[in-house]
Amino acid sequence: MTAASLAADPTRQPAADAGRTDPPDVREAVLATARRAREAAAVLRALPRATKDRALHAIADALGERAEEVLAANRQDVQRARDAGTDPAIVDRLTLTPERLSAIADAVRTVADLPDPVGEVVRGYTLPNGLEVRQVRVPFGVVGMIYEARPNVTVDAAALALKSGNAALLRGSASAYASNAALVAVMRDALAAVDVPADAIALVPGTSRDSVTHLMTARGLVDVLIPRGGAGLITSVVEGSTVPVIETGVGNCHVYVDDSADPAKALAILLNAKTQRVSVCNTAETLLVHAGIAERFLPAALAALRDSGVTVHGDDRVAAYAESAGATFVPATDTDWEQEYLSLDLAAAVVDSLEDAVGHIRRWSSGHTEAIVAESTGAVRRFVAGVDAAAIMVNASTRFTDGGEFGFGAEIGISTQKLHARGPMGLTELTSTTYIVTGDGQVRT
Amino acid sequence: MTAASLAADPTRQPAADAGRTDPPDVREAVLATARRAREAAAVLRALPRATKDRALHAIADALGERAEEVLAANRQDVQRARDAGTDPAIVDRLTLTPERLSAIADAVRTVADLPDPVGEVVRGYTLPNGLEVRQVRVPFGVVGMIYEARPNVTVDAAALALKSGNAALLRGSASAYASNAALVAVMRDALAAVDVPADAIALVPGTSRDSVTHLMTARGLVDVLIPRGGAGLITSVVEGSTVPVIETGVGNCHVYVDDSADPAKALAILLNAKTQRVSVCNTAETLLVHAGIAERFLPAALAALRDSGVTVHGDDRVAAYAESAGATFVPATDTDWEQEYLSLDLAAAVVDSLEDAVGHIRRWSSGHTEAIVAESTGAVRRFVAGVDAAAIMVNASTRFTDGGEFGFGAEIGISTQKLHARGPMGLTELTSTTYIVTGDGQVRT
Repeated sequence: MTAASLAADPTRQPAADAGRTDPPDVREAVLATARRAREAAAVLRALPRATKDRALHAIADALGERAEEVLAANRQDVQRARDAGTDPAIVDRLTLTPERLSAIADAVRTVADLPDPVGEVVRGYTLPNGLEVRQVRVPFGVVGMIYEARPNVTVDAAALALKSGNAALLRGSASAYASNAALVAVMRDALAAVDVPADAIALVPGTSRDSVTHLMTARGLVDVLIPRGGAGLITSVVEGSTVPVIETGVGNCHVYVDDSADPAKALAILLNAKTQRVSVCNTAETLLVHAGIAERFLPAALAALRDSGVTVHGDDRVAAYAESAGATFVPATDTDWEQEYLSLDLAAAVVDSLEDAVGHIRRWSSGHTEAIVAESTGAVRRFVAGVDAAAIMVNASTRFTDGGEFGFGAEIGISTQKLHARGPMGLTELTSTTYIVTGDGQVRT
Repeated sequence: MTAASLAADPTRQPAADAGRTDPPDVREAVLATARRAREAAAVLRALPRATKDRALHAIADALGERAEEVLAANRQDVQRARDAGTDPAIVDRLTLTPERLSAIADAVRTVADLPDPVGEVVRGYTLPNGLEVRQVRVPFGVVGMIYEARPNVTVDAAALALKSGNAALLRGSASAYASNAALVAVMRDALAAVDVPADAIALVPGTSRDSVTHLMTARGLVDVLIPRGGAGLITSVVEGSTVPVIETGVGNCHVYVDDSADPAKALAILLNAKTQRVSVCNTAETLLVHAGIAERFLPAALAALRDSGVTVHGDDRVAAYAESAGATFVPATDTDWEQEYLSLDLAAAVVDSLEDAVGHIRRWSSGHTEAIVAESTGAVRRFVAGVDAAAIMVNASTRFTDGGEFGFGAEIGISTQKLHARGPMGLTELTSTTYIVTGDGQVRT
């Protein structure tokens, strides 16, 4: 079945060229899609790893074989985005090329190679009455993804959901609708070809705000929602959803340079954390320097930041070093302390103590990643005890908070909430558990 | 500080005799309480186990020493409830006696004896670049509890939160307000006496719907909400909250008797699951019997249920055995399949296969506990693969789904959602994790 033939049955999955309008009854269309996903999930949860891996390889192969179909759909999205005067950086993120599509397919093969989290025994013991208790990983069921422009998320999320035994309901942005519909059509056909229910991967019908709302309130049909994108998207999902949500991504990450720090390590870590890739959530946004090392650290740091094109938004005590270091400098306001710049900007302050740094972080942090550079074990211990974040980097760059870097093999997102999963989420984090209690007729007295 | 002296500062904690009205600005009062809890949580997260245990023993001792003060406050609540014509069973749940208060204090001592979950290393490994990754348990921060009449929950929840390093925001029912205020006053004084911040345990001000709403929307101040009570309470919290929620409790539990079952074991398990304690969530509400064993099982089962005072709401195939067994019988409707009776009522149906039983459970279950009675390993395997629930009992009573029975030593509730925790929740489930990554200057390339 091709994207075109899927279009012949509009109640099933939308066609790549369906344009930007919702189906007539968008609520029923969304719920019907979710119900079919739920039925598929009942099959998926019991599939052996070999079947899931075969399906993943079928998807990867199909993405290669039908690349031209996907690229043609993507050209429609790209043209529409250009016609609408979209920022070239966003158009670039939206654009698929043969090379990018090939990388997407390779990522699916990588997921196939990862261990299956389903069936893992998390805890197991025998009770005094002879009951054998085992807590075992099981799929969530139906995982909903709400995300912005990059079409690669469509395939990544579907592959991770499939490997972990979950059905995926995908709601990408309207601007990538044709691309996503084409990718989903290819993946569904690949599933059907290996006798896995095609409804295990589905695009949520519609491109309106309404279609998102119906997905967010499909309690009992959708087990968990994972939003990925900007702060606005995530807040709207967290506040509007009655389905449990895993909040991802906003990172206002700090690098604290203790007075016990090795200045060379501190400089290398700061530059890497700020400049290695500026548009991502694990990039550093604020530098805090202990007053006891400011004189030894800040002149060189400000000069190096200038050489890397970084504008420093500093407090008065940083300002004192700015001119002589030739820094690109603007005075900081409270807005700077809370901002996720995602650009070559860095807020900076001098603090009188480690405790003041911890206090600053507690007040302004988004709870993503906080780094300390220090040689003193006591300082490290106090920082770790005081800071509340998904990840704490001790003498390492904030950029390491990443599923790939952590060795998970893949990542569905980075949780900045405390419930269920915190930090990079791989396959394990896409599972729940069931207690299986085995007896021989035991009753409670 | 006694409950009476606390009343002198109405912005702090309400007095036992504050009655049933909200403070003038209930929103600000709730948020101020949450902010103080947040500050206390910053201290609590770093407390060593010894300090937390000392605080728990101080609470237990104070509950003994100031029993009369608590009982006097409770008498006010009980009198108000009686005057309002409240159901005697509910009045009984609300009532504290010296014995019950003593048992509550003993439960706090039991919590002190449990291991501290904070600091446990969940995962730990070294990356190829030398970074040491450790995933370590940390407290959530501020845990909000919204619950109904039983005042023992006030102390249980506070003790479990404290042991796991969390501040507790307690919002009991208006009918137990005086009791809860007295219990909280005693606990706060005990904390202060051992130099632990009193704000680690706080009653949410107000008894109106508004005060709950402000708690449910205190994002950034409250880390997790756990509702405990009836289905109505839980649904309203799940739907109205923007703070992450752990859904607890509703149990429409099934006992499936396979045609491979030992009828004697099946009967013992059924009677225990239905009648050992009818008002709790892990009680069985529906019996499903394989057609191949109906003739051998149902006549004796129906007679035994009758002897235990159980009314059977059965389908036509159960009806066929009802009269000769002398059952108390009414024909079942769809309402019966979805109902959590919490009474001596049982829905019952005959199914043609294990798969039909699984299908019935998938349709009607609340995802709490499902039991299979079977000698066939193949049947057990298919049931476990097909049923999606917090707990699956194989040849054991549904009544075992309980933190105490599972050996957790204590229980904050039973999660029926899939996110974060599923099934009985003990101290471990009141924690989140942080990744602590330790290096020696590593940067990402």
